[in-house]
Amino acid sequence: MRELKIVSRKRNEMIDITRDIQKIVNEEKPGAGIVIVYVPHTTAGITINEGADPSVQRDIIETLKKLIPESGDYHHLEGNSDAHIKASLLGSSVTVIVKNNKLILGTWQHIFFYEGDGPRNRRVYVKIN
Amino acid sequence: MRELKIVSRKRNEMIDITRDIQKIVNEEKPGAGIVIVYVPHTTAGITINEGADPSVQRDIIETLKKLIPESGDYHHLEGNSDAHIKASLLGSSVTVIVKNNKLILGTWQHIFFYEGDGPRNRRVYVKIN
Amino acid sequence: MRELKIVSRKRNEMIDITRDIQKIVNEEKPGAGIVIVYVPHTTAGITINEGADPSVQRDIIETLKKLIPESGDYHHLEGNSDAHIKASLLGSSVTVIVKNNKLILGTWQHIFFYEGDGPRNRRVYVKIN
Repeated sequence: MRELKIVSRKRNEMIDITRDIQKIVNEEKPGAGIVIVYVPHTTAGITINEGADPSVQRDIIETLKKLIPESGDYHHLEGNSDAHIKASLLGSSVTVIVKNNKLILGTWQHIFFYEGDGPRNRRVYVKIN
Repeated sequence: MRELKIVSRKRNEMIDITRDIQKIVNEEKPGAGIVIVYVPHTTAGITINEGADPSVQRDIIETLKKLIPESGDYHHLEGNSDAHIKASLLGSSVTVIVKNNKLILGTWQHIFFYEGDGPRNRRVYVKIN
Repeated sequence: MRELKIVSRKRNEMIDITRDIQKIVNEEKPGAGIVIVYVPHTTAGITINEGADPSVQRDIIETLKKLIPESGDYHHLEGNSDAHIKASLLGSSVTVIVKNNKLILGTWQHIFFYEGDGPRNRRVYVKIN
């Protein structure tokens, strides 16, 4: 298992980690298999989406904010219930296929760490299977 | 890794691909393991849900449309931000257990490709691990 | 593949199954690998989130109820379309990394079975790969 350190700068932010994951695959040289990219946090998630136009990230972040507002009828007292809910909707891991030591992503696909309660120091676990 | 070609007919559509995935498992004969069904697109997703009553698919599609409307305060100029957001909420892959060369699904479970910006020619990657 | 039996007590409920999954890993002793925790139902899901403060579970459940109400313009006649939709949003499986026969979860992470149409007798499949 490998570990990746991430530093988020905003409360809500999508951070492109595709290159970092590919770099780990380059180093581990599994040939073929699958990679699990796992977020060990409960106020952050992970998602695969378009990496070409940053407006897509902006639209995802703003739509999630509208659906699950930061302030609401929440009982959890830390002010980040919205981030917990987003974490469950996006999920805590993604699985990507590897072939010839390359992540098999679609043309527009990038892997994004989704920060829901930043800025914070975060980690991602990477397991090749 | 195997590839499946899908042709969608509507803008929003759930296409049952369970038989196609089982057919690939029949051909690959892994015995036991897991199957990753991966969508390499950013305006489509994949989900497991009820296959018996088509009303369930209709209710999923219409509820997602209501939550994430096609038109809204979006910055991405291609008119498909809703589809990008749905792709992240549903996810880009599902993992199914295989035993004796059979997908181990629940009684009502089918695997659906979720089209969010059709009609289009689409692909799904299938990896047995 | 191992199986876990779950008895839910409410219509909407998050049931912590972390210990049960760790117990299966203790018995199977894979050393290192991944665990797939799979829900074979279409009105229940699975998610990883905070296990320390029960208010987080309450906030997730109540926010999902508000976003996807039990009663609405649904065509499926069994009165549980909301549960089907939540199942697709949360997902039917989670993947967790195992190292030295331990689930590698974050400090606050627990694995929850998400009941959307209880009370019912439910099952979860556990596959170590």
